[in-house]
Formats: sequence, C-alpha cells, structure tokens
Amino acid sequence: MIYEAPVKDMMFLLDDWIGIDQIAALPGYEHVDRDTCEFVLEEAGKFCSRELLPLNRTGDEHGAVFKDGAVMSPPGFREAYAKFCENGWPGLDADPEHGGQGLPRLLQFLIDEMLGSSNMSFKLYAELTHGAYHLMASEASEDIRTRYLPNMVAGSWSGTMCLTEPHSGTDLGLLNTKASRSEDGTYTLTGTKIFITSGDHDLTENILHLVLARLDDAPAGVRGISLFLVPRTLVNDDGSLGERNAVNTASIEHKMGIKGSATCVLNFDQATGYLVGAENRGLMAMFRMMNLERIAVGIQGLGVAEIAYQNALAYARERTQSKAPGPRPDPSKAADPIILQPDIQRKLLKIRAQVEGARAMAVFAGFQADVQARSVDPDAVEAATDFVALLTPLVKSYLSDLGVSSALEAQQVYGGHGYIREHGMEQLVRDARITPIYEGTNEVQAVDLVKRKLTLHEGRLVQRLFQRWKELFDAQATEDELDFVMAPAREALLRLRDLTGWMVERLADDEATALAAATDYQRLFALTAVACFWAEIVAAMAGREGAFFEAKRRIAGIFMQQVLPETVALAVQVRNTDKLSNAVPLLDEA
Amino acid sequence: MIYEAPVKDMMFLLDDWIGIDQIAALPGYEHVDRDTCEFVLEEAGKFCSRELLPLNRTGDEHGAVFKDGAVMSPPGFREAYAKFCENGWPGLDADPEHGGQGLPRLLQFLIDEMLGSSNMSFKLYAELTHGAYHLMASEASEDIRTRYLPNMVAGSWSGTMCLTEPHSGTDLGLLNTKASRSEDGTYTLTGTKIFITSGDHDLTENILHLVLARLDDAPAGVRGISLFLVPRTLVNDDGSLGERNAVNTASIEHKMGIKGSATCVLNFDQATGYLVGAENRGLMAMFRMMNLERIAVGIQGLGVAEIAYQNALAYARERTQSKAPGPRPDPSKAADPIILQPDIQRKLLKIRAQVEGARAMAVFAGFQADVQARSVDPDAVEAATDFVALLTPLVKSYLSDLGVSSALEAQQVYGGHGYIREHGMEQLVRDARITPIYEGTNEVQAVDLVKRKLTLHEGRLVQRLFQRWKELFDAQATEDELDFVMAPAREALLRLRDLTGWMVERLADDEATALAAATDYQRLFALTAVACFWAEIVAAMAGREGAFFEAKRRIAGIFMQQVLPETVALAVQVRNTDKLSNAVPLLDEA
Repeated sequence: MIYEAPVKDMMFLLDDWIGIDQIAALPGYEHVDRDTCEFVLEEAGKFCSRELLPLNRTGDEHGAVFKDGAVMSPPGFREAYAKFCENGWPGLDADPEHGGQGLPRLLQFLIDEMLGSSNMSFKLYAELTHGAYHLMASEASEDIRTRYLPNMVAGSWSGTMCLTEPHSGTDLGLLNTKASRSEDGTYTLTGTKIFITSGDHDLTENILHLVLARLDDAPAGVRGISLFLVPRTLVNDDGSLGERNAVNTASIEHKMGIKGSATCVLNFDQATGYLVGAENRGLMAMFRMMNLERIAVGIQGLGVAEIAYQNALAYARERTQSKAPGPRPDPSKAADPIILQPDIQRKLLKIRAQVEGARAMAVFAGFQADVQARSVDPDAVEAATDFVALLTPLVKSYLSDLGVSSALEAQQVYGGHGYIREHGMEQLVRDARITPIYEGTNEVQAVDLVKRKLTLHEGRLVQRLFQRWKELFDAQATEDELDFVMAPAREALLRLRDLTGWMVERLADDEATALAAATDYQRLFALTAVACFWAEIVAAMAGREGAFFEAKRRIAGIFMQQVLPETVALAVQVRNTDKLSNAVPLLDEA
Repeated sequence: MIYEAPVKDMMFLLDDWIGIDQIAALPGYEHVDRDTCEFVLEEAGKFCSRELLPLNRTGDEHGAVFKDGAVMSPPGFREAYAKFCENGWPGLDADPEHGGQGLPRLLQFLIDEMLGSSNMSFKLYAELTHGAYHLMASEASEDIRTRYLPNMVAGSWSGTMCLTEPHSGTDLGLLNTKASRSEDGTYTLTGTKIFITSGDHDLTENILHLVLARLDDAPAGVRGISLFLVPRTLVNDDGSLGERNAVNTASIEHKMGIKGSATCVLNFDQATGYLVGAENRGLMAMFRMMNLERIAVGIQGLGVAEIAYQNALAYARERTQSKAPGPRPDPSKAADPIILQPDIQRKLLKIRAQVEGARAMAVFAGFQADVQARSVDPDAVEAATDFVALLTPLVKSYLSDLGVSSALEAQQVYGGHGYIREHGMEQLVRDARITPIYEGTNEVQAVDLVKRKLTLHEGRLVQRLFQRWKELFDAQATEDELDFVMAPAREALLRLRDLTGWMVERLADDEATALAAATDYQRLFALTAVACFWAEIVAAMAGREGAFFEAKRRIAGIFMQQVLPETVALAVQVRNTDKLSNAVPLLDEA
C-alpha cells in the first residue's frame, strides 16, 4: 500500500480558509505560524508513511496476543512506539508544564487523520493515552497531575478509558463496578470492564486506567457514577513504580478488525484507585473528554477513506482491463488502464469530494475546540462551544460512515483482488468498521443530536450555525460564477432548516417519531453541513487562479452534483417516519 | 446464531402471486404441486438450520487448508456434504435422465437462498457443480453427458468454472491459457487460472474443471475462446477413474470471508481436456450458464440479508439497554429491550421490506427462467427470455448490495458485540462482501444493463417490462385503498421511463456519460422494479384478510416510504453525470 499525507490540502484549509493568524491569536498559541504547522504536518506524514504504514498489515496478520495473563503487541509495534515517543508525538498538544509542545488541538486532529490512514491499531495505543491525559489534566488533583502527567506526555505511561461492562454499554447508568472508600483517602474498586482498548500491552512501563464506578452509597443511575484513576502498577510518592495493583486482564476480544489493538476484559479485584474530580460527578467529567474523542473517532474514518482513495486511484492507473470508451491512449494495446472507465472515474471523484469536504468539517470543529479551550473572549467561547457541541455527533457519524463506505468503494475498484488479503483493501474495510460503533454508535450520536443538541439553549446551537451560512449566502451576488456551488448548498440549507423545525415539533409531540428519524436526519444534516463548508471554502478562494484552486472548485462541484442529492431522499424518508408506527407491531410476530 | 427458513413467505410468493398452476403448466413440471413445493422447502430449510448453520462459524475459523498440494475442507464439511448428497439435494433441478429430480429451477433458487443464509462457504462447493452440470447438459457431447453427468447429479463428482487469469478478469478477451489439438481428438491445456472456487477439495472423488482457453490458431479476443472439460482425474471408457490429470493446485487465497470455501490457483501443465461445444464458441456457451449463476449470486446476498435480519431482531428483543420512549412494558426494570427503540424498529423494518421485495424479484426471475427453459409457446419463451436477460444484472447487483448493507445494519444493532467474532455478525459482513464482486462486479452488471440490455431488440426488453407494470397501474381505480403502494410505485416507474430515455440518448451521443451513470441507474432501476413487484403482490392479494396479508401490506408501505425515496436522489445524480467530464482530468494529478 501507498500513503502520502495530504499536507497540501491540510495547509490550504489552515492557511487559506481558517487562517493561521486566527489560531495564533489564541492565548498560548502565539508561537504557531505557517512554517511550524507545515513542518509538523510534513514530519508526521513521513513518520506515518515510513514507520507505521509498513506495520499495518503485520498488526492485522499477527494481532495482539494474550498469553499467560499479559498482552503482547504485534511485532514491530514496540520499536515504532519508542520512535513515536522519541519524536515527541505523544505530547504534541499537551501542556508545556507537563513536557508537552503546547500546539493546537487542531494540529493533533490533522495528525490523527494521518495515524488513522496509516495504522489504526497503532494509533489506538496512543489515542487513549491522549484522551486520558486531557481528562486528568482538567479534572485531577494537582498531586495526581504532577505525579502522572509528565510520564504520559513522554509516552512511557499509557492510559485507558474503562466504561463498558457486559450489561452496560450505551446505557452507562446500568454499570455496577463498585468503589469503596478506604481509610487513607484512596478507594477500592471491584468489577469487570469489557471492550477496554489498550487495557493491557507491552509498549509502556505503566498503564493508567480511568474507571467509572459506583460508590457504595451512590444514587442509582448516571448521577451516581464516579471517576477513578487505577494504575496497573501503583506509583510511589517519589514517582517510582511500586507494587502491581489488583487489575488483571481476563482475555482479549477476537475482532473483525483493528486486530493489532488489544481490546481487553479487565477484572478489578479490590484494586486501589484515586478519585478524579468530585464523587458522583464522574460521568460528566468523562463526557467532556469523550466529545473530543468522538471527533477523533470520526477522523479515524476520514483517515481510512483517504488511504483507500489513494490506493484505489493508484491501482486504477496501473491495472489494465478492457478497452476504454472514447479515444484510446494507445490503440495498439489489448486493454487500457481502468482509470479510463467512466464508472471508476465517478467513484474516485466522489470519494475525493467527500473526503476533502469531510476534512473541512473536521478542521472547522478542531479550530472551534481550540477557541473553546483558549479564547478569553466570552462570546467567542460561547460560539465555539455551541459549534463543537453541535458538530460532534455530525463529525463522528458522517466521517466514520465515510470511512466504511469509501473503503468498500475502493475495494470494489480492485475487483476480486480487493477481496484477498494481499492488497490490504479488505483490512481497511474491517478496521474502519469499528468507527461507526465505538465511542457511542452513530445511532447514539443521532439521539444526542436530536434530543440534546437541537433543543439546548432553546435551539441556539442550530440557529447560530444556520445564521453563519445564511450570511454567507446572502453575501453572494445573484448570477454569481460560484452559483454551481452556492445554489445547491443554499437550497440544502433551506431544506435542513425546514426539516429541523419539523423534528423539533415532533420531539415535543411525538418523540418516538423524531427518534425513528434521527439517523437519517443526522446524515442529512452532515451532508448539508459539508456542502455549506464547501461553499465557505469556494467563497474564501474566489478569484484565485492556478491548478490547485481550479481543482478545488471542480471537486466542490462533484460534491454538489453526486453526493448532496442524497439529502432529497433523506428528507422524504425523515417525514415518512410519521407513518412508521403502524408497522412496528409486525416486529412482535414469532 | 439462529435461522428459520422463510418457507411461509416463499410459499406465498409461489402460490398466491406466481401461481403453482403456472409452473405445473410447463412441460416436465406436471408433477409439481403445492404439497411438493412446501415439502421440499421445509426439508431444505431443516437441513440448512440443522446441518449447515452449525458449521458456518467452524468454516470461518478453521478455513479451507492447503497442505502438500491438496485442499482440505473445514471440519464437518465432509460429513455434511455426504448427507447433502444422500438427501438428493445436488440433483434437485437436474434431468431425471441423469438421476435428477426434475424440479423447477425456481425451487432451486429458493433453496439457494437458504444455503446462502446458513453457510455460504458450503454452498459454493455445491453451487459450482450445479452450474457446471447445466452447462455440460446443454453444451457437451452425448458421450460426455452420459459418462459424467450422473456422477455430478449424485454429488460424487464436483465441478468448477475456470475463467479468470491474473491479467484477465472482467476482460476475458485477454486470457491466454493455451489449448492444442491432440491426435486422438482430445486437447492439451497449459496455463494458470486464478480465483477458482472449489478448484480443489476433499469432498468428492473427482473434480471436473470447465476451462476457457485459446486454441493455437484461434482469433484474438473473445471470438477465439473455447470451452474444455478437464477432469482432475481422467475417466476411463467404462466410467471408472483413471490416472491423475496434469492439473495442480498452486495455492489458495487468503480472503476477507467465505474462508471455508477454497479459492484456488490452478496450474494446467499439458493437461488433457475435452472440447465442450464448438471451437471458438466457448465464451458464449459459458455466458449462457453465467447468467443464471449471476442470479444465484444475487440470491446469496439475499440469503445473508435474511439471516442477518432474523438474528438482529432476536438480539434486539433480548438485549436490554436504556429506557424506551413512550409507555414502558415494565417500569420497575432499569432498562428495556432495545427493540423498543424507534431507530432499531425502523432499521429492522427497512431490512425486512427490502428482503421481502428482493425475494419477490428473484422469484419472478426464477419463474421466467423456467418458462424460458420449458415453455413450448414461442411468445412466452420470447417474453421470458427478455425478462431473464433484463433482470439478471438487477437481481445480481441489487440483491448482493442488499446482502452487504443488511449485514452492516444488523451488525450495527449489536453495537460493540457485533464487532467481535463470537456473535457471527461480522462474518456475515465479510462473507456477503464477495457477492457484489464475483460473477462480474456490480459495475460490470451495470455496463451489461446499459450497453446491452437497454438496446437489445431495439429496446424491446425494457418496453415489455414497463408495459407489464403500466397495465397493472392502469387497472387500478383512482382513490384506491392500495394507493399507498400504487401511487409511489407508479411515480417511480414514470421516473425510470424518463431516465431510460435519457440513458439511451446518452448512449448514442456520449457513451462515457451513460457509462458513468450506469451504476446509479442500475440501482434506481432495481429499486423501481422491486417497488413494482410489491405493487403486483399487493394487487394480487387485494381484499384478502388476516394477519399475514395485513403484514405484507404494511411492509410494502415501509418499502415505499423508507426505501424507494432513494430513487429521487439517484435520478438527480444520473442526470448530473453530464457535468462529470470537467473533473476527470483531476485524476491525472500526481
């Protein structure tokens, strides 16, 4: 497989659309400039292509192995992880106080895409540490922060998120891992957690589990959940490693994909834990972190879509089969490259239009996350908070679905050769397939979008986003040369506004109908949002000439012509959920 | 996993829609009646649930194994295959002259669905034999028929189709396996074939390869391809097995799915072969057989969709998580079964509406194949031939895509539990994924539909099908109580007619645009066809009361409301391919 990080497109979005000056204007990011961004992205891209991509198939073929109670990562992962840490990648957006580089979260998201392209399994060992770091940095006591965070930033200690239990996945209110207060101010945890990514492995000296559990006297449901730090190996007061804690790996899962990543069943058997944040407030703390993780999971899907595109394009140029319609490049040959087949061209252009549009949505969300975290302007923070909250389910669901659909389409370009393991395309499908499932299934995202985000602050979140785009379209002259993008995007926005009104009404009168429509509505919203981001981009580069800008405009056109029309169908399906209830009793039949 | 063959729905389609009397009116099928059909389907269903389903995961986990130059099928397959033969399943629709039961092809297709549901890998060992039998029965010399066919019908000898070579897949004109005439009237074959399903295994005493090859003096391209029978073990004049032929298995493929099926690389090294049909006419003979194989591959996808639905429904009833909206069945419980979540209900109903509609399309195509093969009325044969030719790419592409999409949706119902191997859902996705690829990718089907079927006999094929449905809709009263099905189906048909005109024009003026639109047009055609078959069904059972018929009407409504709207979007995308060409040069960028 080949992979070249799309640094040019990333730099275009940062520099020509978002504006690097806008990032540098945020407190703490004064040192961020064009050269820094480009250098960091180039280096990350090289690391991913040279070090991680070659291990991707090894990770799949060999898998993480569970033996004698411990997990071994696939061959080569230890060496690559050591280089990853040497180069400082674990601390990219970490606080300099803990040894981090203090770069924007947005850059981290772009690098997340590259990691997702080159090696999803490897990425997961680092990603959970990254999430745990940020959660602890914002919620843990100073003592914990001082003692643990520098080792996480250095990459020598890793992190996990222990939420799911056998009977408690989507509904965390059902969890029953127990925590008891000990006399020394620590806690004792007992219970079983499943689906714990990187729950055990051999890449780091220690593993820090962030565990949701219920105190003996906690209220039932989600308001009785607390968050604990439970290190695999206890840490002495001087920061050195002490005794092994009572956390054991019972098994690892045999999965469809991301086989190089260890997904563990962990048993906590009176393990020592430290409270993070306040008692009974653990779920809210976890959710603050999970929102950014959800964006990161969407970006994994984007990463897979990008590498699937690059390889399908390369294969289509190389593979000869049948004669192309129209003038043939070399009529003496028995067959032409399949890239000359119109259906292959349409497929590839369609993936590219979706990938570039999805990347824009992710970049916008990433920038707003930085504004939310750093700005001192309360209005800007409020706006950014609204944007991040609203876009989180859209980025998570749309980009993860795009990862799967693009991998499937790219696999199809290979014909029978795409079905055998050798070419790696089928691995992309299997790896990408987890992204619509974990960190809250895409259906859970849709419920979050519809039940929570649409009505939060009396609808302010959607109003703000719609207003942004209304201003964009109002500012366009009629009969504009950009109408081929502006007109369909504006029309889609109007459709989305109407339908949002319909959804909010249903939510009040007939919640079941609104919830039945939620997934289709979410996809329609995401497609419309991407169309509007394309419109922003095309407006931002209006009048600029050259091959790159011309290509962007044409790809924007492909999005409008070949992708956006799906919203017309989705709108009909959403409204038709009104009639769904009369068929529901059929599901009760034997 | 669970599986119960949908015999009730199958019998409904046979008896209440197609009419078993219509089948029994065909020469040779006089003995076919309702009881026979029901008995055969019930028995096949039991065999699939009891014998084949339990081996499905074994087949996947163990796989076919290649060792010391030979393939071993997964544990249990030999025993199951022996029972399969004892019960007479290999000869269901074979000629009684060769020991077959002489039952309709339509019944075979229904059993194919059950085999696809319960064990795709196992099915493939039998399916290729079935195809080879029919090809030899229609094309081979009497000597070959007498000597080989009874053993195929008994299941003791199996068959393969050897078409693909490393550089010749979709484009068979490129193949270069050589055949030379020997003095004794036999031929000597040399070359390498890849992707040969059941190319070697331990289930039968002999394997008969049907091989496409090129005679030394053959013209180039598709008009220089001949068909040969090349037995793995040569057969003596008295029918006993003789020497081993010069066919060797070089390796088997490591695939995404259908791992229990051996996909072989075969080397022919001056192997002895026997001409089937006329020299240089091999491809046409092969294609006649492949058309029915293409329908069978679509039906594999249908089978996977059905079992995916059954299991997702069962899981959704069992798995409790979160509280359902609306009145709760037992408010004392902490959580409700997820079947009460509206999004899960919509997903499941949508799969069911597609599966039942797709089954109707397959049944119609299967019945027409029987009419085509058996009827003595030339008009009926012409009509049936047209229907089969036109529906083949639609059944193959729509049903295979449905297998993948339904398996993905069903997997999603399981959440994280769908991603681990234990529940079997991820295997369904991996197994189904081959169906849009093999027997001609779905894109190849689209080219066949657009370039060949639309224009064949000056458009007679589509006109005939459209006329059938126009008559159906014309016969409906306005303000009919069936309007909820009739109106959307009629509207979709009008849209398809318009778009077909557009496609035929483009085909004449601008072939590249027509070909770029072919896949979306094909899907739009199939969705419209299924809607029209639903309309036929609803009309056929008008006025009939009872839970079964009421359920059918409601499910038909779900198809119209939640599935058919996609055609609106597809129609826009098809017309927009007019604008695609300006973006095509972007694919040349570095």
